Amino acid sequence: MSKTICRVGLVGTEFMGKAHANAFGQAGRFFNLARPVRITAVAARDETKTREFAKRWSIDRPMARWEDLVVDPDIDLVDIATPNFLHAPLALAALKAGKHVACEKPLAVDLETARSMRDAAKKSKAKTFVWFNYRRCPAVALAHQLLRNHRLGEIRHIRAQYLQSWGGPKIPLTWRFKKRLAGSGAHGDLNAHMIDMARFLSGDEIKEIHGAVGRTFVKKRSVPGGQKSARSEVDDSFSFLATMAQGATASFESSRLAPGHLNGNRMEINGEHGSIRFSFEDMNVLEFFDAKDKKKEAGWRRIMVTDQAEHPYVGAWWPEGHVVGYEHAFTNQVSDMMRVLASKKPVIPLADFHDAYQTQRVLEAALISARDGCRVKMTTVK
Amino acid sequence: MSKTICRVGLVGTEFMGKAHANAFGQAGRFFNLARPVRITAVAARDETKTREFAKRWSIDRPMARWEDLVVDPDIDLVDIATPNFLHAPLALAALKAGKHVACEKPLAVDLETARSMRDAAKKSKAKTFVWFNYRRCPAVALAHQLLRNHRLGEIRHIRAQYLQSWGGPKIPLTWRFKKRLAGSGAHGDLNAHMIDMARFLSGDEIKEIHGAVGRTFVKKRSVPGGQKSARSEVDDSFSFLATMAQGATASFESSRLAPGHLNGNRMEINGEHGSIRFSFEDMNVLEFFDAKDKKKEAGWRRIMVTDQAEHPYVGAWWPEGHVVGYEHAFTNQVSDMMRVLASKKPVIPLADFHDAYQTQRVLEAALISARDGCRVKMTTVK
Amino acid sequence: MSKTICRVGLVGTEFMGKAHANAFGQAGRFFNLARPVRITAVAARDETKTREFAKRWSIDRPMARWEDLVVDPDIDLVDIATPNFLHAPLALAALKAGKHVACEKPLAVDLETARSMRDAAKKSKAKTFVWFNYRRCPAVALAHQLLRNHRLGEIRHIRAQYLQSWGGPKIPLTWRFKKRLAGSGAHGDLNAHMIDMARFLSGDEIKEIHGAVGRTFVKKRSVPGGQKSARSEVDDSFSFLATMAQGATASFESSRLAPGHLNGNRMEINGEHGSIRFSFEDMNVLEFFDAKDKKKEAGWRRIMVTDQAEHPYVGAWWPEGHVVGYEHAFTNQVSDMMRVLASKKPVIPLADFHDAYQTQRVLEAALISARDGCRVKMTTVK
Amino acid sequence: MSKTICRVGLVGTEFMGKAHANAFGQAGRFFNLARPVRITAVAARDETKTREFAKRWSIDRPMARWEDLVVDPDIDLVDIATPNFLHAPLALAALKAGKHVACEKPLAVDLETARSMRDAAKKSKAKTFVWFNYRRCPAVALAHQLLRNHRLGEIRHIRAQYLQSWGGPKIPLTWRFKKRLAGSGAHGDLNAHMIDMARFLSGDEIKEIHGAVGRTFVKKRSVPGGQKSARSEVDDSFSFLATMAQGATASFESSRLAPGHLNGNRMEINGEHGSIRFSFEDMNVLEFFDAKDKKKEAGWRRIMVTDQAEHPYVGAWWPEGHVVGYEHAFTNQVSDMMRVLASKKPVIPLADFHDAYQTQRVLEAALISARDGCRVKMTTVK
Repeated sequence: MSKTICRVGLVGTEFMGKAHANAFGQAGRFFNLARPVRITAVAARDETKTREFAKRWSIDRPMARWEDLVVDPDIDLVDIATPNFLHAPLALAALKAGKHVACEKPLAVDLETARSMRDAAKKSKAKTFVWFNYRRCPAVALAHQLLRNHRLGEIRHIRAQYLQSWGGPKIPLTWRFKKRLAGSGAHGDLNAHMIDMARFLSGDEIKEIHGAVGRTFVKKRSVPGGQKSARSEVDDSFSFLATMAQGATASFESSRLAPGHLNGNRMEINGEHGSIRFSFEDMNVLEFFDAKDKKKEAGWRRIMVTDQAEHPYVGAWWPEGHVVGYEHAFTNQVSDMMRVLASKKPVIPLADFHDAYQTQRVLEAALISARDGCRVKMTTVK
Repeated sequence: MSKTICRVGLVGTEFMGKAHANAFGQAGRFFNLARPVRITAVAARDETKTREFAKRWSIDRPMARWEDLVVDPDIDLVDIATPNFLHAPLALAALKAGKHVACEKPLAVDLETARSMRDAAKKSKAKTFVWFNYRRCPAVALAHQLLRNHRLGEIRHIRAQYLQSWGGPKIPLTWRFKKRLAGSGAHGDLNAHMIDMARFLSGDEIKEIHGAVGRTFVKKRSVPGGQKSARSEVDDSFSFLATMAQGATASFESSRLAPGHLNGNRMEINGEHGSIRFSFEDMNVLEFFDAKDKKKEAGWRRIMVTDQAEHPYVGAWWPEGHVVGYEHAFTNQVSDMMRVLASKKPVIPLADFHDAYQTQRVLEAALISARDGCRVKMTTVK
Repeated sequence: MSKTICRVGLVGTEFMGKAHANAFGQAGRFFNLARPVRITAVAARDETKTREFAKRWSIDRPMARWEDLVVDPDIDLVDIATPNFLHAPLALAALKAGKHVACEKPLAVDLETARSMRDAAKKSKAKTFVWFNYRRCPAVALAHQLLRNHRLGEIRHIRAQYLQSWGGPKIPLTWRFKKRLAGSGAHGDLNAHMIDMARFLSGDEIKEIHGAVGRTFVKKRSVPGGQKSARSEVDDSFSFLATMAQGATASFESSRLAPGHLNGNRMEINGEHGSIRFSFEDMNVLEFFDAKDKKKEAGWRRIMVTDQAEHPYVGAWWPEGHVVGYEHAFTNQVSDMMRVLASKKPVIPLADFHDAYQTQRVLEAALISARDGCRVKMTTVK
Repeated sequence: MSKTICRVGLVGTEFMGKAHANAFGQAGRFFNLARPVRITAVAARDETKTREFAKRWSIDRPMARWEDLVVDPDIDLVDIATPNFLHAPLALAALKAGKHVACEKPLAVDLETARSMRDAAKKSKAKTFVWFNYRRCPAVALAHQLLRNHRLGEIRHIRAQYLQSWGGPKIPLTWRFKKRLAGSGAHGDLNAHMIDMARFLSGDEIKEIHGAVGRTFVKKRSVPGGQKSARSEVDDSFSFLATMAQGATASFESSRLAPGHLNGNRMEINGEHGSIRFSFEDMNVLEFFDAKDKKKEAGWRRIMVTDQAEHPYVGAWWPEGHVVGYEHAFTNQVSDMMRVLASKKPVIPLADFHDAYQTQRVLEAALISARDGCRVKMTTVK
C-alpha cells in the first residue's frame, strides 16, 4: 500500500520550484524510497513558463490555476514553493481537500495566519511538512545525532547567523520587500531557518527574548518594470537575543547586507562537554570540539561528513570526500517525507506545521520585542 | 540537425556508471543543451543489476553484452565507465562502428594501448571525449580563465597532490590492485587527473621528469569472496618531479594511504604575478593571490565560485552561495560535450583521445623514471 | 627634555605584571622610542615574590607598599596591573601625586568609580592611558586604517565575540568571581575589550542597548586554600545587542564557558563597501572583503599583516611572515605611550581615562538592560 | 658550577643577530634557566652599528674583529649569526679556542667544509649547537612528542615545503645570491630547515634521492650600491624527491618566488595511524588527524598549542590562547642549550654539528642528483 506512488502537485516554478522539482526527481534515483514519488502536476501564474517548466522536469500536467491543482483527485501531496503570502491559502485549501502538504518556510506571513494553518493541520488526517532544508545537510544531521547522544552536555550558548549580501540598492522591489506578501524581510526569510535549527539541534525551546532590532538600510527600491521607486517595507537585517528554556543563551542575526557572505548560514553551539559549529558555505564539514579529548591533543575536529557507512544520508550519494551541494538536502528531505508517508521514521525528525508554528511564534516574539523595546516571555506569545 | 537527440549507450553501472547516468539525466534539466541527450541503452556484466540500474535511471534498454551495444545502430555515443582494461576494446570497437566515444580516465592501461586509441580516434570522423571531470568544477574553470588571461604571468611552480586514504589493508584485492586490469594504482587513477589539470591550467607540457617513486605499502590483500590473500600488483602511492616546457617546476604526488584526506585533489600554481590554489574537498572555492594588489592589502582571496552571472557553469545551477557538489562537474561536461557535437565551443576545452594520450605519455615517462632511476626527457617517450 | 628617561613604577606582578614588565623591557630594544623608558620600581603584596620579580625583570626597587610607590618622587608614570578593585585607589593617588598613569582595563569596578577616575584625570595635567592592548595588534591597527580611509563605507553591522573556556567548575573562587573585587565577570573582563574595539574601529558610539543577558552557569566554586565552596558573584557569560549612533547594529557576547575557544577575541564589521574580520587566535591576519573588487574575483582576502614597510608596528619587529604574538601589542603600546609623553602622535589612537569611561558607560548600560529587561538609551546613562 | 653565568660572544648584528640577541635576553625573563646566560660581547664589521647594537641590547663589549672575540678568555660560547661563508672559519677558530659554539644554519657552504666542522666538533670537548629554530615552535615540538609516542605508526609520506616570495627582480645581488658566500640559494637557506625537520620529526634518515631540480628564474640582479647588474649564482627554487630509510616517501620544495607565501614553512606527515601538519604562518597550531578516532567523528584536529600545563615550552610564556611568535622558538632554544650546558636533557633534542652535518649531506646529495639527473643513494655521499 505504501508502495503506491505518491503523486505530487507542485505550485511554483521559480527558485524554490526548481529546487523541489529536482529533489522529487532525484530522490528515486539515489534512495530506495519507502514510497515512490513523482511530480505529476505543476501550477504557476505564467502559462508559458509553466509549460516549459513541466517539459523540462518531465511533469505530465502543467496547470494554470493552483485552485484546480489543490483539489485535483489525482494529487496526493501538494508541494508549496510560492511567495510567502500564498502559503496559507494553498495549504488550507489542500488540507481541506485531504491532501498531504509540504510547504516552504516561513510557514506564514504572520502568527495568526500560521495558527490557522497549524489548526487546520491538527484537524486533518493528512501529513504536513515544512521545507527546513538545512536540517538535512549531512553535517547538520550529524550535529543532531551528536547532540541527542549528549555529547555536548548541558548547552550554554547558541550563536546563529544567516548572512547574505545580495540586498543592495540595485535590487528592485520584488515581493520579498513587501510586508503583505513576504511578512518580513531577512527575519522571516533567514531567521526562520536559524530558529528552526536552534530548536532542532538543541531539542530545547526559546523561553524569552531579551531584545531585538530590525533595520532597513535601503529605504527605497525601484519598482520592477517601471522607473519609479517605492519604499521597502521590510527589514534588511534583524537581530535578537534570547534565552532557551533550559538556560542557554542564544543570539540570532540575519542580514542581506553583509558583504563577503553569500549564503552564510552559520551556527555554533557551546555545551558543557564540547562544541559544534556549521557553516553552510562549507556544508560538507561539521566542526566538533570534544572537551573530553585529552587536553594536550584537543582541537576543533574538521569532520568531512561524507562517509557512506557512517554519516546520515551520505549512503545514498557518493564515496567519501566526493562532496554534495545545496540541492541534496532537499532530496534527502523527499526521502524522509516518503518514509513518513510509509509510516517509517525519518532519518532525523521533520518539521510539520505544528513545529513550524513554534518557530513562527519566536519570529513574532522577536518582532514584538523590537517594536516595544522590552523583554518578551514566550508564554505571552500565543 | 544538431538538435537531433544524442542517444547514449552507457557501459558500466558501478560508481562511474552512476555518476555518468546522473550527469546525462541532469544536463537537460539545468542546461539549455546545444543538443538534447539521453541514455537509451546500458550494458554491464551482471544482468540483474543492469536491469535494476536501467529502471532506476529510466534507461530503455538494458543490454547483456557491450559488444552488442557498441555496434547498435540506435546509439550515437558510447560512454565508457568500466574498469581501465576495457577502455581500449570498447573504444576501438565503438570508433570502428562510427560512434562518438566518451571514455573514463586514464585513457588506457599502458601507453601502447593508449596510442592505438589515439590513432583510431585520429582516423575516425567521430568525436572522442575523456572524463577529466575536475576541469569542470567551476573553481577550476575559473582558474583556467584567470590563467588564460595571463593573470599569473610566467608560471614558476605547479604543486599537485591527489591524496586519499581508503587503501588500507582491509580493502580486498579488487581489479584496482591488478596490473593487467588497472594499469597502475594511485598513479593512473589519481596522477592522471593531476597531470591533466596541470597541462590544462598551465597550457604547457611536461618536458622532463627528474625522478619518480612508487610504493606499495600494503603488499598483500585478501581475494574477494575467498579466504586467501594475494599480492597487490600496483602502487599505493606514486610521486614524481618534473619541469614544464616553459620552465616551471612541477611536483606530483598521489596516495591512497594519506589519513585525513578523502578525495584530496589539490593544485597550487605560483606565477610571476600571482598564485591560485584549489582543493576539491572545498570545491566551490578558488583561492587567488594577486601580487598586483597593493601590498598593504594583498592576501589570498577566497573566491566563492558561485555567481550565476560571473562564474563558469554556475548560471545553470543555484543562486550565489548555494554550493554545488562532486556530480555537477560531470553534468557540466555533458553540456560541453553536447556543445561540441553541435559544433559549438565548450565553455572550457574538453580533453579528447589525443589530449588524454599526452597525459598518458607523462604517466609512462614517470613510470620509466621510477624504474630506471634517472631523468627522462619527454621527447624520448613516444 | 622629552628624551629624559620615563621612570615607571609598576604595581602588580601576576599575569598582567609580567606582560607589562616585558613590554617596557622590550620597547627600547625594538623601537626607537620617542622617550626612553624603564621600570624602576615594582610593588605588590607578597614581598618575596616581588623581590624575585624585580630581579627577573632587572627592576631596581622592589617595594612592599603601593602607597609608597605612587608618591615616590623618582617615579614619572604609575603602571597599574592589579585586580580591578585597586585601579581606582591607585590611579587617584597617583594622579594626585602628579604622576602619569597607565591602567589595566576595565577602568573600574563600577561606573561611579570610573567617573571619579575620569574626573581626576580631567583635572590633572598628567597623561592617562588604559591598556586596551588589542588595539595594537598590527591586524587591528590595519583595520583601523582601512576604516578611517572609508574603505567599508557606511557601517551596517558589528559582530563582537570574546570567547574563552577556562571557567569550568574546577576553577576556584579567585578575586575574578567576587563582585566587589572584579565588578563583573566575563562582561567587564572581556566585553570591555570588545566595546573598546567596536568604538575604536567604527569611530562611532553606542546609542542604545536593545537587550542584554548575563548568566552564571557555575553557581558555586571552591574557596582557594580551603575546602569550602562559596557562591560565584559574577557572570560567566554576558551578551547584549545594540545600535550605534550612525545606525549600525552591534552584537556583543563574552563567555568563559565556550569550549574550543581559548582567547577568542573576534570582531567582524560589515559596511556598505566591504567587510573586515579579526580573530585573535590567528592574530597576524586581517581578513578583508572589498566589495569593490570585480565580482568574478572578489573574495575574503587573508592579509598577513607582517610587512615591515607597509603595516603598522611591524617595522619594529621581523621580516614578512615572521609572525608576532600576544605580548607584542603591549610593547607596541609602550612605544605609543612614549610618543604621547614626547608630544608626538601615536601610530593609532590610545585610550585615556575619558575614552575608557565611555566604554564603562556601555558596560553599565548593558547591566541595566539585563537587570530591567528593557531597552536602554545611552543618554540616560551618565 | 653549572650555575656560573654562560658568557656569550655574538658575531653578527643583522636579522639573525637581532633574533639571537633577543633570545639570549628574554630567556632568563621567562625561563628558570638551568644555567644563567648573558651576551657579553658582540662583533661585526661595521663599528658604529656594532656599538649601537651593543647599546640597544645591553651588551658590554662591542668588538671590531671576530678574530679577537672567538679567542677572548671571557667568552664561554661563541654564537655565530653571520652570512654562511663565515660559519666555518668562526666555528673552527672558536672550537680551537675551547669555546662552545652555536651556529646558524646551514652548517656550511659545502659538504667538505661542513665535514671539517663536524670533525673539529668531534675532537673538541666543547658543545656545539645549530640554530634549527623551527624545531622549537611549540607545535613542532608537540608533533615530535606525538611521533615519538608512535601516534602515527609507520610513516608513509613526508611533504615539506618552504615557500617565500621576497626574491623578485627588484632585490639586489646581496651575499645571498653569491655561491661562494651563500653556498646555494633557497636550497641551503630553506630546504636545510625542512630536511632537519623531516629527520627530526620522523626519527629517520633519508636513504635515497630520486630526482632534484633547482631553478634560477631571476638571472641578473642589480649590484648593491652600483648601477650595474650581475648574474645571480644561486637557485631561486629547489625541489627534490626522496625515500626515507624506513620506507616513507618524502618531497621537498623551497622557493623564494611563490606569491602568497611569506614564510611558508610547512610540513605534513602521513602515517599508518594518522597524520600531522604544521604551517609556520599559523605557528601556534598543530593539526592532527587521528585515524584511531571513531570514523564518524574523525577529522583534522586544530590543536592550539598554547596550554601552559600540557604543551612544550608554553609554561614559560602566557595563558592558553595567548599566542607566541617567531622569536619565541629562539628563546626556547636558548633555554634548552643552557640545559645541555648544565648536563640536563633539553625539552626536545637539539641539533649539534654532527646532526647538522647529516642534513648537509642531504643538501649535497640533492645537488648531485640535480646536476647528474640520476638517483643518488645517501651511502655514496660521504
